[in-house]
Amino acid sequence: MENIRISKIASYVPSKVITNDDLGEIMDTSDEWISSRTGIKKRHISVSENTSELCIKVAEKLLQESDWECASIDLIIVATMSPDSYTPATAALVQGKIGATNAVAFDISAACSGFVYGLTVAQSFLMQNEIKKVMLIGGEVLSKVIDWSERSSAVLFGDGAAGVLLEKSTKQSAFLAHDLKTYGELGDKLKAGETKPIESFPRTKEHVISGFSMSGRDVYTFATHKVPESIVTASKKAGLELEQIDWFVMHQANSRIVEQIAKKLKQPISKFPMNIEEYGNTSAASVPLLLDELVKSEKIKRGQVIALSGFGGGLTVGTQIIKY
Amino acid sequence: MENIRISKIASYVPSKVITNDDLGEIMDTSDEWISSRTGIKKRHISVSENTSELCIKVAEKLLQESDWECASIDLIIVATMSPDSYTPATAALVQGKIGATNAVAFDISAACSGFVYGLTVAQSFLMQNEIKKVMLIGGEVLSKVIDWSERSSAVLFGDGAAGVLLEKSTKQSAFLAHDLKTYGELGDKLKAGETKPIESFPRTKEHVISGFSMSGRDVYTFATHKVPESIVTASKKAGLELEQIDWFVMHQANSRIVEQIAKKLKQPISKFPMNIEEYGNTSAASVPLLLDELVKSEKIKRGQVIALSGFGGGLTVGTQIIKY
Repeated sequence: MENIRISKIASYVPSKVITNDDLGEIMDTSDEWISSRTGIKKRHISVSENTSELCIKVAEKLLQESDWECASIDLIIVATMSPDSYTPATAALVQGKIGATNAVAFDISAACSGFVYGLTVAQSFLMQNEIKKVMLIGGEVLSKVIDWSERSSAVLFGDGAAGVLLEKSTKQSAFLAHDLKTYGELGDKLKAGETKPIESFPRTKEHVISGFSMSGRDVYTFATHKVPESIVTASKKAGLELEQIDWFVMHQANSRIVEQIAKKLKQPISKFPMNIEEYGNTSAASVPLLLDELVKSEKIKRGQVIALSGFGGGLTVGTQIIKY
Repeated sequence: MENIRISKIASYVPSKVITNDDLGEIMDTSDEWISSRTGIKKRHISVSENTSELCIKVAEKLLQESDWECASIDLIIVATMSPDSYTPATAALVQGKIGATNAVAFDISAACSGFVYGLTVAQSFLMQNEIKKVMLIGGEVLSKVIDWSERSSAVLFGDGAAGVLLEKSTKQSAFLAHDLKTYGELGDKLKAGETKPIESFPRTKEHVISGFSMSGRDVYTFATHKVPESIVTASKKAGLELEQIDWFVMHQANSRIVEQIAKKLKQPISKFPMNIEEYGNTSAASVPLLLDELVKSEKIKRGQVIALSGFGGGLTVGTQIIKY
């Protein structure tokens, strides 16, 4: 196994903030209803910037903070469930814009587990001799998929992007162990952005994609069972007791889910930092967005052990145990 | 490096066939115009079946032909630029439907290079100890993205899916060498399925995705330069002369592109089999669709050396040199 280091983390969120009260003006909801059930107070919403543009901002920050030459990047992966287009891949737009002329670029689609799945894809590539430097970004503009007349889902999501630079290292690897699982038989519990096949030839109408549809209760049950399972499995693989994990950086879907995960794992909630209040659920961006905040505020320090877990559409769940 | 074997190949195309003459009835085009410029005579179009359904048919065929237990599959990757939905991933739907309970599943998006890129992702995962069996499928229902009133792109594409089972082997590896490149600065030369961010909050209209837009001349120039380059690079890495490659299985975008690649490489066109006449451009499905046809018809035999090349949206290009 190659040793891999997380050398930089960065994030970018669009400036426009929509509060729960703002939502209360356009749909039958309230700050009290949303925040008591989800922990969300506001979300950042992208007006005019598409997913690639958020990701490019992250990429530029990552490069500014590092000494990497653009041409030294071997691979750029964007994890997203709201790409600019079916083609080009959002990662290709990042690659072209920053001038990473030697980087291969593609997107992966695993919804809210996308960043954690992406860490494993990146890690796998870094096991090849010729791959030395990888940029991995989770980015979403979910606001373009949201049906703003559908209050059960519209209140939950936000936009943003965050990512990391990963490189080979001579020191102990950042990647201690992981556990990824997919439960495709539950795929219909959380759907978004569906495009239907034509019913007859030729279709003349415009191509419409559907907004979000989800069974909140099923997703809650799934997450509060499968995420603790995944963390326990990954910890065992890493040879660690849960007590040896300094931080649990969970996908920010709902503060109640995170509280329940902490309870199931019998770990203090203080080890489960949250920023859902500010951003809502940003899908593939949420884990690195929180990680960036914790690193920048010096809560997370070099050498600490962190469990990163994503969960959501697919349904999917994934945990990476890293030593930062 | 782990040794990897391609153990099975299978494909599935929808039964509905649309000929050039059929297209001539709904737009200002003709069989002569289409076939002389592209080599395409017809295409299979999916009515009612979405991408996951085509991919599930392929997965079921792969399993029927092999002795794999579903539960032994570690990873399912679908390469697609026309997923059923933004979430769940099409691979998750395949995983759930075939009951591959231990498989992790995600999609990758690299357009017409998706299958060749996917081979490299699969190969990277197979370098991990715990990953032994991978299912990789390229599947597309491009008909749902096509603007059927836009003759310049509508005549080019078709629907289909095809895939492989990959597993660790004690014999010489099937994967001899690869070369992948991304040219994101040319991303706007071939676009499809764009969803625009909201212009103001809240957006009330439906979410519309755009059809195909492409600069055919630029894509032609790109492909006829970069694909030969990629094949030469990958061959050198594999330590092979072009003469030692038995077959060049190229993405089927346009027969003229394939002829030009053969010419540039100074290799006989007889080593460049084509089936574009029957299927049109099926994006991520085209390379395995052709590979399956050649294996089933016993043109490709075990032990032969094959260059697989994808190219297209991104812009992307990729070559895998395999020993079948």
